[in-house]
Amino acid sequence: MLVKKLAADVSAYDGKQVVLQGWVRTNRKGKNIGFLVINDGSCFANAQVVYSAEQDGFDEIAKITLGSAVEVTGTFKATPDGKQPFEIQAEKVEVLGMCDHDYPLQKKRHSFEYMREIPHIRPRANTYYAVFRLRSVLSMAIHTFFQERGFVYVHTPVITGNDAEGAGECFTVTTRSDDHYEKDFFGKHAQLTVSGQLHVEPFALTYRNVYTFGPTFRAENSNTTRHASEFWMIEPELAFADLDDDMDCIEEMMKFCIRYCLEHCPEEFAFFEKMIDHDCVKRIQKVADSHFQRMTYTEAIEHLLKAKDQFENQDIFWGMDLQSEHERYICEKIVDGPVFLIDYPKDIKAFYMRVNDDQKTVAACDLLVPYVGELVGGSQREERYDVLEQRMKDMGMNQDILQWYLDLRRFGGCKHSGFGLGFDRMLMYMSGIQNIRDVEPYPRTPRNLIF
Amino acid sequence: MLVKKLAADVSAYDGKQVVLQGWVRTNRKGKNIGFLVINDGSCFANAQVVYSAEQDGFDEIAKITLGSAVEVTGTFKATPDGKQPFEIQAEKVEVLGMCDHDYPLQKKRHSFEYMREIPHIRPRANTYYAVFRLRSVLSMAIHTFFQERGFVYVHTPVITGNDAEGAGECFTVTTRSDDHYEKDFFGKHAQLTVSGQLHVEPFALTYRNVYTFGPTFRAENSNTTRHASEFWMIEPELAFADLDDDMDCIEEMMKFCIRYCLEHCPEEFAFFEKMIDHDCVKRIQKVADSHFQRMTYTEAIEHLLKAKDQFENQDIFWGMDLQSEHERYICEKIVDGPVFLIDYPKDIKAFYMRVNDDQKTVAACDLLVPYVGELVGGSQREERYDVLEQRMKDMGMNQDILQWYLDLRRFGGCKHSGFGLGFDRMLMYMSGIQNIRDVEPYPRTPRNLIF
Repeated sequence: MLVKKLAADVSAYDGKQVVLQGWVRTNRKGKNIGFLVINDGSCFANAQVVYSAEQDGFDEIAKITLGSAVEVTGTFKATPDGKQPFEIQAEKVEVLGMCDHDYPLQKKRHSFEYMREIPHIRPRANTYYAVFRLRSVLSMAIHTFFQERGFVYVHTPVITGNDAEGAGECFTVTTRSDDHYEKDFFGKHAQLTVSGQLHVEPFALTYRNVYTFGPTFRAENSNTTRHASEFWMIEPELAFADLDDDMDCIEEMMKFCIRYCLEHCPEEFAFFEKMIDHDCVKRIQKVADSHFQRMTYTEAIEHLLKAKDQFENQDIFWGMDLQSEHERYICEKIVDGPVFLIDYPKDIKAFYMRVNDDQKTVAACDLLVPYVGELVGGSQREERYDVLEQRMKDMGMNQDILQWYLDLRRFGGCKHSGFGLGFDRMLMYMSGIQNIRDVEPYPRTPRNLIF
Repeated sequence: MLVKKLAADVSAYDGKQVVLQGWVRTNRKGKNIGFLVINDGSCFANAQVVYSAEQDGFDEIAKITLGSAVEVTGTFKATPDGKQPFEIQAEKVEVLGMCDHDYPLQKKRHSFEYMREIPHIRPRANTYYAVFRLRSVLSMAIHTFFQERGFVYVHTPVITGNDAEGAGECFTVTTRSDDHYEKDFFGKHAQLTVSGQLHVEPFALTYRNVYTFGPTFRAENSNTTRHASEFWMIEPELAFADLDDDMDCIEEMMKFCIRYCLEHCPEEFAFFEKMIDHDCVKRIQKVADSHFQRMTYTEAIEHLLKAKDQFENQDIFWGMDLQSEHERYICEKIVDGPVFLIDYPKDIKAFYMRVNDDQKTVAACDLLVPYVGELVGGSQREERYDVLEQRMKDMGMNQDILQWYLDLRRFGGCKHSGFGLGFDRMLMYMSGIQNIRDVEPYPRTPRNLIF
């Protein structure tokens, strides 16, 4: 019997005998009565088990340590006037696995840093217990959103030979201990993917609407709270769609995911609100209820110039890359809500973004949201062979390696658009968790590879 | 307007004006009339567009090449007596992207080998077009099955430092071109994961029921039709569950996935039946309707000994690893349906499998199905610290690296079980496709890394 099931229908189980398995969260013993709080993994809530001095083995039950696995047989009792909605009057408590006394998770608050050293144990601590369930639910929200709309899920490859894009530093994948890659497993240099976008575009030009959802990698030696070497990305791609269609899809997806998670994780969000970030539910609920505004990069620069004095980086000019403080100013002070910045200078954006008629900007969009700044980046893709080829030349890219990608423009190409959502950052945004290391089951960062 | 939507409600659209975008599959011109068959990616079925010599631009439409992207405006016409259920009487056909004449996909049958050279184009060919949609639908079936049952989805890491298991050869992940891994990005040797199981077990000991679904890797230099260097695996793990519970879960999952796919991909399966494997639907339907039997390895060996003469490998003895011909004999000739073989000799199974009371066998199960043999492998995990530690010693494993895994047995350990399903093989099994290279979007195999 699962706690989730019992909690969902307290009156139906009142007075019934139940058998539960779970792990001990606390064990308090008084003179005549003891309380064993167990969690069985099925939901955030615990079950309180009451045992009494009158029953066999009172002292043994009292000795059950924190973290132990137990099986409880007892009578379910609705407690409408109690702090918990129900409790279990124990008849029998069997220890399935006693927890040793050097259990790393004692009944006190541990620091996030300490917890990162014990990724095999920390899911049992409330914060992580809530985060990793939300991670699962948000994954399902993503799949549900796209599949219900007929998008085809594509497993783009993790290992790629496609190192032309140059989006940050890459990990090499090899079976050798030198750089004779021509003799390597694949007969050439191979690396971990930095993005599935180029690989998924051919599928958009087949199925119209597609998405990837998988791990991506960066070998950047940067130790920030927002960067990990391994993280999951969602990269949808839509054929016959321009930048406006792209933004409509982003907006719809964001709202769907927020509502889905609020609906499926009410206890987890109540916990985040209480313990992690008081405003998190209000913040995302507001996003779900907003109309996402749209503003050009050029307009944004004008706003920033007027407010120059407020920034740490005061060197504001057209053509600059916006920093987080600038992005937050735009969405928090100017718009007071989510906003798409569009039409960025082409020199600060990727080669595949469609050049606008002004020849200076590209049809890109970044979704900025209060509290974090950029959350999603998208663009209409350059579908004109000549323009794309010229842009690759201008940027000094190796055309040979991406000839297949160029060829998509010769073989029934059409206007298409797509975007990328960093899954882990979305999770941080929703929960209020400040460090990407605390939303990933086994975070990988420079000089940090535990298990 | 999507073809899928039109096809689903032909009578509602009869006589209405519609606008479609899609890619030209064929274009036949007669003297007074022409037929443009387009596919818009929304479903397997094409839409037939009729254009006539009486309209403007007849000759231009007739010149539209195979593979081109077009937008068609016309009148939808239900054709209950025709070969297709509907057609579009064109008013206007606009070319969005003309396809060049060196288009690699001409109107003839191409070999699978040829197709593998053009992974950016082949999704448009019927076989791949059907396979990759099924791939997406089967993914969703997996997620739906587990999420509906409260399983938590865990993103186990792709990069791991955990090279103790020794399950086949591994890819190194590095930013260096020598083997000074102590100076490497992570400060030690890192590799691509071969299985998420060890990393997911801590989550089962927290959430009770969990699963992974992600890419895994093998650097084995074997060129077979069933091995790829990168493939996706599903690895569920169930706490408080023994081998019987594990098999129940496998059986339920298999049946659910088959029914889900048959329901969501009827056109794709009709195609597979006609063009790839006449028996595929019958075969999987039978599995969905079967009770999965259970037989010990020891019994299986007895059956095989009696039928020895029928095998290529006639060296049958207790303790041997069964080969595909043996597995198929058991499920096809002896059982005539899906069967779990259980209680394998411990010497041919992994260190983490629970040792049975006979001390000779482990609580493992392999699901054998007609036509392919083994499809799923599972086991109850060794939850006894001492037994697990001894087994690791016996197998010469480095205990230091897996001390965290051993410790799970000291910190509230309990009986638990899990299994692994090779996603790509499941897809082969369902579709009848014979080569794993033809069910993966960008297959990676020795000396083969395209894009």
